[in-house]
Amino acid sequence: MRTSSASRPHSPVTGQMMDQPLLISGILEFAARHYPATEIVSRTVEGDLHRYTYRDCERRARQMAQVLAGLGVEMGQRVATLAWNGYRHLELYYAVSGSGFVLHTINPRLHPEQVAYIVNHAEDQYLFFDLTFLPLVQAVAAHCPTVKGFVLMSDRAHMPQETAIPNLLCYEDLLAASSADFSWPDFDEYAAASLCYTSGTTGNPKGALYSHRSTVLHAYAAAMPNALNVSARDTVLPVVPMFHVNAWGLPYAVLLAGAKMVFPGPALDGKSLYELFESEGITLSAGVPTVWLGLVNYAIQNDLQFSTFRRTVIGGSACPPAMMDTLIDRLNVDVVHAWGMTEMSPLGTAGVLQARHLALPKQAQRAILQKQGHAIFGVDMKIVDDAGVEIAWDGSTYGHLFVKGPWIIDSYFREEGGDVLVDGWFPTGDVATIDVDGYMQITDRSKDVIKSGGEWIGTIDLENIAMAHPAVLQAACIGVAHPKWDERPLLLVVKRPGLDVTRADLLAFFEGKVAKFWLPDDVAFIDALPMGATGKIQKNKLREQFRHHQLPTL
Amino acid sequence: MRTSSASRPHSPVTGQMMDQPLLISGILEFAARHYPATEIVSRTVEGDLHRYTYRDCERRARQMAQVLAGLGVEMGQRVATLAWNGYRHLELYYAVSGSGFVLHTINPRLHPEQVAYIVNHAEDQYLFFDLTFLPLVQAVAAHCPTVKGFVLMSDRAHMPQETAIPNLLCYEDLLAASSADFSWPDFDEYAAASLCYTSGTTGNPKGALYSHRSTVLHAYAAAMPNALNVSARDTVLPVVPMFHVNAWGLPYAVLLAGAKMVFPGPALDGKSLYELFESEGITLSAGVPTVWLGLVNYAIQNDLQFSTFRRTVIGGSACPPAMMDTLIDRLNVDVVHAWGMTEMSPLGTAGVLQARHLALPKQAQRAILQKQGHAIFGVDMKIVDDAGVEIAWDGSTYGHLFVKGPWIIDSYFREEGGDVLVDGWFPTGDVATIDVDGYMQITDRSKDVIKSGGEWIGTIDLENIAMAHPAVLQAACIGVAHPKWDERPLLLVVKRPGLDVTRADLLAFFEGKVAKFWLPDDVAFIDALPMGATGKIQKNKLREQFRHHQLPTL
Repeated sequence: MRTSSASRPHSPVTGQMMDQPLLISGILEFAARHYPATEIVSRTVEGDLHRYTYRDCERRARQMAQVLAGLGVEMGQRVATLAWNGYRHLELYYAVSGSGFVLHTINPRLHPEQVAYIVNHAEDQYLFFDLTFLPLVQAVAAHCPTVKGFVLMSDRAHMPQETAIPNLLCYEDLLAASSADFSWPDFDEYAAASLCYTSGTTGNPKGALYSHRSTVLHAYAAAMPNALNVSARDTVLPVVPMFHVNAWGLPYAVLLAGAKMVFPGPALDGKSLYELFESEGITLSAGVPTVWLGLVNYAIQNDLQFSTFRRTVIGGSACPPAMMDTLIDRLNVDVVHAWGMTEMSPLGTAGVLQARHLALPKQAQRAILQKQGHAIFGVDMKIVDDAGVEIAWDGSTYGHLFVKGPWIIDSYFREEGGDVLVDGWFPTGDVATIDVDGYMQITDRSKDVIKSGGEWIGTIDLENIAMAHPAVLQAACIGVAHPKWDERPLLLVVKRPGLDVTRADLLAFFEGKVAKFWLPDDVAFIDALPMGATGKIQKNKLREQFRHHQLPTL
Repeated sequence: MRTSSASRPHSPVTGQMMDQPLLISGILEFAARHYPATEIVSRTVEGDLHRYTYRDCERRARQMAQVLAGLGVEMGQRVATLAWNGYRHLELYYAVSGSGFVLHTINPRLHPEQVAYIVNHAEDQYLFFDLTFLPLVQAVAAHCPTVKGFVLMSDRAHMPQETAIPNLLCYEDLLAASSADFSWPDFDEYAAASLCYTSGTTGNPKGALYSHRSTVLHAYAAAMPNALNVSARDTVLPVVPMFHVNAWGLPYAVLLAGAKMVFPGPALDGKSLYELFESEGITLSAGVPTVWLGLVNYAIQNDLQFSTFRRTVIGGSACPPAMMDTLIDRLNVDVVHAWGMTEMSPLGTAGVLQARHLALPKQAQRAILQKQGHAIFGVDMKIVDDAGVEIAWDGSTYGHLFVKGPWIIDSYFREEGGDVLVDGWFPTGDVATIDVDGYMQITDRSKDVIKSGGEWIGTIDLENIAMAHPAVLQAACIGVAHPKWDERPLLLVVKRPGLDVTRADLLAFFEGKVAKFWLPDDVAFIDALPMGATGKIQKNKLREQFRHHQLPTL
């Protein structure tokens, strides 16, 4: 909200520069005007490979903007998508936000009830969807009273013969009936532009409402050499979905950099990706570790190399060190760790080396790259103790991580209570270290860290050690109440099928790997760990289940 | 001015992002906090090599901000510098603008009368200067009534024993007496931040008044891979002076990128530069062609290579093709042509290749790099005919070049008449072509282009051809009135000492190199061309002198 700008001092002398708002439509206009022939290639849901240029995209986005105006959408209202990475989704990114409406990208992997919840919470006016999601839309349509129409992002030939969906429209029919005689409107850059919901482990999903200003500034920062490093020489394939925090900003950063864009559609298996990387000459990609696992395995199993692919951005969760080694040493692909949150648009840090690191031995460089990364310009970070006092950046002292910057939320969309900041800083809910060179490493979630005798014990480190044991399939570490130390660590382990390991074996496995007071007090073997919808271990459930666990150290 | 934002529509729904102004102090704070140990190395006026870190710089900038507050400077008032590229000048960049004052960098190569004119026009409150410029300051001090004090940017040991300068202060003494207990103030990002005067061929110099917003956005754009491409892996030496359009924004872009900074001070000869490039490991530099000539000649004559230097940005005027070839092919240094104006902060275009150019033969790539470059994100361009109608981007049709963007002025500082824009676009005064890929090439100044029978004849092309003749030292082409064709070209030539060439020889030399109607109607030999203070040929004087020249074609 712009509450603070009213109280900010104005200078008696203002600069005499052109007053141009930072608008998302400006990115597409720039791309179409200055890189008119640069290609956008899409593997479609229908299976074929669609190609056109930035200029074509901008023209169709203007037509779609006319369609939306004709449908009666008003400034600030939400228009939802349930779609893969593809050219029609890109057109909507610009047509919706560029018109002054709010693009609401929905994660189709959510449970239908959650989809309906956020459609209703956002009061979406229209919902655009890919053919893949027809069953999902059929399941939720009746529960979304604010939605005036559902638009299938395909042509007449792919429209279903019969459907229970009320007011089902065809994307290409709407476009064909609309002219491109439309100028992108000029409005305030603080206007809302897009909306992404984030689902925590508890409670309903919460929305982050981005502005045009925050999106354009984030795109500048994302394209920088210290971040994603996108130039007109690149061909970029975003594996990270456009329904996941705006594909980390790539639909904006790639266009402003004039790079060729390649969309993979729904085919994200190793073979499909490898073939597309090779046929289109991908140089840069971005995604979560799981996807890289498939691609890396396919390349290794078939003894393949990449012809043009030289850099990948990995985020969402940490890239396992072995995968990073394979990518860099075996496949000649640089790895950039990126960290952020839906609440941060999402980029906060990126892991690239600094000049003085170039002379370090490989393993020392790798240790830097395995951290979550270095703040990108525009983002500030701090780590604080339980009393809120800022602590040193020494690479070993843990603290609660707070962030600040023009593309970080100050409150959630339509949430009671308003401002979620603490002294102007956003609490990430993570515990982290920051080293003297500014590289941040997440060591735990704030609510998961174990507090023992005034010291903090990071559960992620303990779990990583346990998982390095050959007989351990999964591990989770939680704090259990202890009268003397407040809390002590309990390690919960799921064994690999057919393999065995004892409590004593596991505890011995930790010896010499961590400080003595970090050693778990006990190990319990369980059949499975409770997992949430987004694939994260639900430690709150484990803490509840083991609340009365009798530690042998009592 | 912010006149238009008041009338810009506000959305009923604004984004819920942190409201943080884009302030220049934010760049230094980010650099000091996130790259605390990154070095700033300066060859000083006194001759030694000074080194310290971003963290040191930020602390001293805060001390200097305290000094300025103590001297009674008020928000929006101007503080001037006459200084080389060095760490104290960098401290002033941030201390002055970061405090809400306006940094006015003066070109010490101007005539003392012009220096006094702009000091008075700007109503500078204090003037900071390097030891080199003591005589200049002594010459102008008495003519600068608004200046309350003159600060020598050195220590007590270098203060002159006797001086006629009233209220002469010592930089290091002021700093030593001041604490760093100062927080950068928060204010509106549209506040004026710095002021640069540009001297045209006629009239008094005019000031471009940059804002914090325009400076930070320009810095983002300048650091991008498609522009200067500055990362934390770089060591950057700006040869372009900090008194010349803020050294093309490098004092901002280098810090936000966390790159090591090396300042050359006044020693810009080939040998001094080469030695500094090698000893400090420079990877990236920027300057005008004249400076590169010295450095390239020194390297070639001594059969040297660069160990780390891999990319240079060349602007101010076009890099001669032979020098570009030597830099790229012989010295392994990539050349990025950059074009801009004081009125543009200054960057408008940069010449880097796009993905589809990488397969072109070397000469075709070189032809692209020799153009002025491609618009960087944030800048829009258009070329128009005499009637103001936009013309095609085909790489051959000429038009008046107009530009638009948030770091381009809308009016000059304290100039009568206000807004200098035409339909919101800034008239560059240049004539240019733009090709289908968006690369712009300047072919002439609008006032110099020759209009013959409704067609335009570019004088720069004709002059370049003439100068390729071995007997030609200098050449200038002007239009002379012609009853049938309106204007026809007259070529003015200064011969090389000891060499001779006839009118007929020269005209024959043009055959086959240009269209027939471009051939000069006549050649006149003169002893010298009239040159302006900034080294440009004064064609208006030539046009006056040859107004009644009798063309043989009449």
